[in-house]
Amino acid sequence: MRPSARILTSALALVACATALAADAGGIGSRVFVVERASGSLAVYDYIERRLLPERITGLGNLRHATMIFSPDLRFGYLATRNGQVSRIDLQRLEKTGVVFTSENSIDNAISQDGRYIATAEYVPGGLTLLDAASMEVLKRHTATFDAEGISHPSRVTGVVDAPGNRFVCVLIEGAEIWIVDASKPDFPIEHRIATRQNNPYDAMITPDGRFYVVGHMESDRVSVLDLTRPGDGILEVSLRDPGVAYDKAMPVKLPHLASWAVAGKWIFVPLVGEDRLAVLDRTSWKLVQSIPLRGHPVYAVRSPSEREVWVSFSGEEDDAFVQIVDVESLAVTDTIRVGRRIYHMDFTPRGSHVLISANADDRLFLVNAATHEIEDEQEVASPSGIFGVWRAFRTGL
Amino acid sequence: MRPSARILTSALALVACATALAADAGGIGSRVFVVERASGSLAVYDYIERRLLPERITGLGNLRHATMIFSPDLRFGYLATRNGQVSRIDLQRLEKTGVVFTSENSIDNAISQDGRYIATAEYVPGGLTLLDAASMEVLKRHTATFDAEGISHPSRVTGVVDAPGNRFVCVLIEGAEIWIVDASKPDFPIEHRIATRQNNPYDAMITPDGRFYVVGHMESDRVSVLDLTRPGDGILEVSLRDPGVAYDKAMPVKLPHLASWAVAGKWIFVPLVGEDRLAVLDRTSWKLVQSIPLRGHPVYAVRSPSEREVWVSFSGEEDDAFVQIVDVESLAVTDTIRVGRRIYHMDFTPRGSHVLISANADDRLFLVNAATHEIEDEQEVASPSGIFGVWRAFRTGL
Repeated sequence: MRPSARILTSALALVACATALAADAGGIGSRVFVVERASGSLAVYDYIERRLLPERITGLGNLRHATMIFSPDLRFGYLATRNGQVSRIDLQRLEKTGVVFTSENSIDNAISQDGRYIATAEYVPGGLTLLDAASMEVLKRHTATFDAEGISHPSRVTGVVDAPGNRFVCVLIEGAEIWIVDASKPDFPIEHRIATRQNNPYDAMITPDGRFYVVGHMESDRVSVLDLTRPGDGILEVSLRDPGVAYDKAMPVKLPHLASWAVAGKWIFVPLVGEDRLAVLDRTSWKLVQSIPLRGHPVYAVRSPSEREVWVSFSGEEDDAFVQIVDVESLAVTDTIRVGRRIYHMDFTPRGSHVLISANADDRLFLVNAATHEIEDEQEVASPSGIFGVWRAFRTGL
Repeated sequence: MRPSARILTSALALVACATALAADAGGIGSRVFVVERASGSLAVYDYIERRLLPERITGLGNLRHATMIFSPDLRFGYLATRNGQVSRIDLQRLEKTGVVFTSENSIDNAISQDGRYIATAEYVPGGLTLLDAASMEVLKRHTATFDAEGISHPSRVTGVVDAPGNRFVCVLIEGAEIWIVDASKPDFPIEHRIATRQNNPYDAMITPDGRFYVVGHMESDRVSVLDLTRPGDGILEVSLRDPGVAYDKAMPVKLPHLASWAVAGKWIFVPLVGEDRLAVLDRTSWKLVQSIPLRGHPVYAVRSPSEREVWVSFSGEEDDAFVQIVDVESLAVTDTIRVGRRIYHMDFTPRGSHVLISANADDRLFLVNAATHEIEDEQEVASPSGIFGVWRAFRTGL
């Protein structure tokens, strides 16, 4: 090698080094990953700098119902996708640094409290897959089945979440059974299997305190609630029908995805698909307390970190650009704001100063001031859907 | 320059680059800063890697009652010290990158929700100083005074916290007045000044939901509670005396620092200095509900993220190596564990898997499994005191 070539090599090394350091500049705590559903990619927004970062992360698979989780040391994000692909994203460099296919079709993922293991809920073949979060190696597959007329059939699995005590919790769709898996023990034993009584669970969530696992059932107005501190006590069934409303019995009951529920103050707020109201349940008794009238059919209810407000999004072209703000103390709508068409996701910044909102039909990400309700920033993002801030690393069940 | 020198330069550049990248390796989300009080320095512990990092940050001033806050983008930590020194720490490089002296004697600091401003509470000269978080420049000094016999005197300020709506809240010791400062407006106006009725407030805290500001008064068994959603309604006075206990009236009343209170579930847990009990207040009515008997005089009560447990530390040589664990549902002590002598601080990891505990007299930092109560790691740290995990960036009032 001639000296000039050497100099070039050294200059390139310095450039590479400078680039690596430049990525530090903004800090990772305010980074938000926005699913670009149509292109199977992630855009990265910094809500403090109020700009999209130049890095986009591509080649992530089918991002319908994609969920992203974060390691507790904030080194990595993990994106689970519908085609069974789990991608590891370096949060500092904003690069994809690992891919594994856990199944042909998966729906959800979760990371253990200790950050060592990832669980993915699989549709095909049905089961729960446990991965090493550092190496992305598959450590265990729990096959999910159910028996019909003496024959064992595969069951899809959904609603996997992390829970206190380094547990994972998930639910079998055809099997109609909740599993509690201990991620602190070798081979990840299923320590509890609890039948849900009703059939066809389709989704689940855990309350933010990590105590209750709530399962929705297809074509049913009743959800199954399991107190994870007393799994032996079995399931509490909770109706979401408002006794004061006359229902058309022929109308199919449809509940929203459970991630859309908001737990705030003494209440649980449940958006009901196809009804113009938000159901309010008592957080202790799980009884329906009242309904709050809304401008349309609600989709998502998201609580503010102060638990003083719940922001609600809507379905349907006439309503889906709007957000209604419900006051948790008076249980009344206090404001209605227009943001952008077909709102798919909302999330508060960690201490509640702003709300991030994706408007899919307008190809826009919005930053709304939570106190004044003014739109303070908007960015063009192609077909935006889920919004995942890195601070989710520090919350249970996200 | 000869070719060999060039090669050396290039090799050095590569080494420098590798070092810069190595600092990334562990991720910053699991970094915990531990105050080494005697030497005026910070040790850095990674609770996921379970090791002290080689970097120590020195020259930080008088670290008695030091508090550390974090920017929302996780670029910086800010350490406020008793000698008026505010130091800025780069969370990635673990270096001190800025110092400013805001006063001769300060006590507390807080960062605004938007991350742009820092407020420090000053003893001498008394007041509230507002800094630009990026430049460390002093933007505003609110001088605190009180009038006695027609003459204005300086007042010390303490208990500064961030509050929803990009506010700061603090209290004047001699002035006996709570200030609410709007950090979203030019010149940081004091939008409310609320007299506390009782004299000599000495410390304050904000509830984790950002709603109530609670002020303790010297030589008083009653605290002042301000509902920040209704500052015009004034102060609620709350007694911490247990009607079932016969008190020696001559005994001076002493309350602990307010940061030691724990809000969990429906309750507020208050360690009472010099009594063998934890007072339990109703979170809604602020009335004393009952007392929980303890093994000694409590100092700190810390809630688990699940709000299912409160861990309590003690004063006095016979008790200060122990932690008692109180169950929030049964309001009873469920376990007593020995950790290390003279426990000064405790904090849960963000999703509650472990508790970090500093034992000052044993020069030890402990990592205790929150489920099994086993000590899983211990590290030698000289005269450890406060423990500050970077995840505090995402909480109100810390």
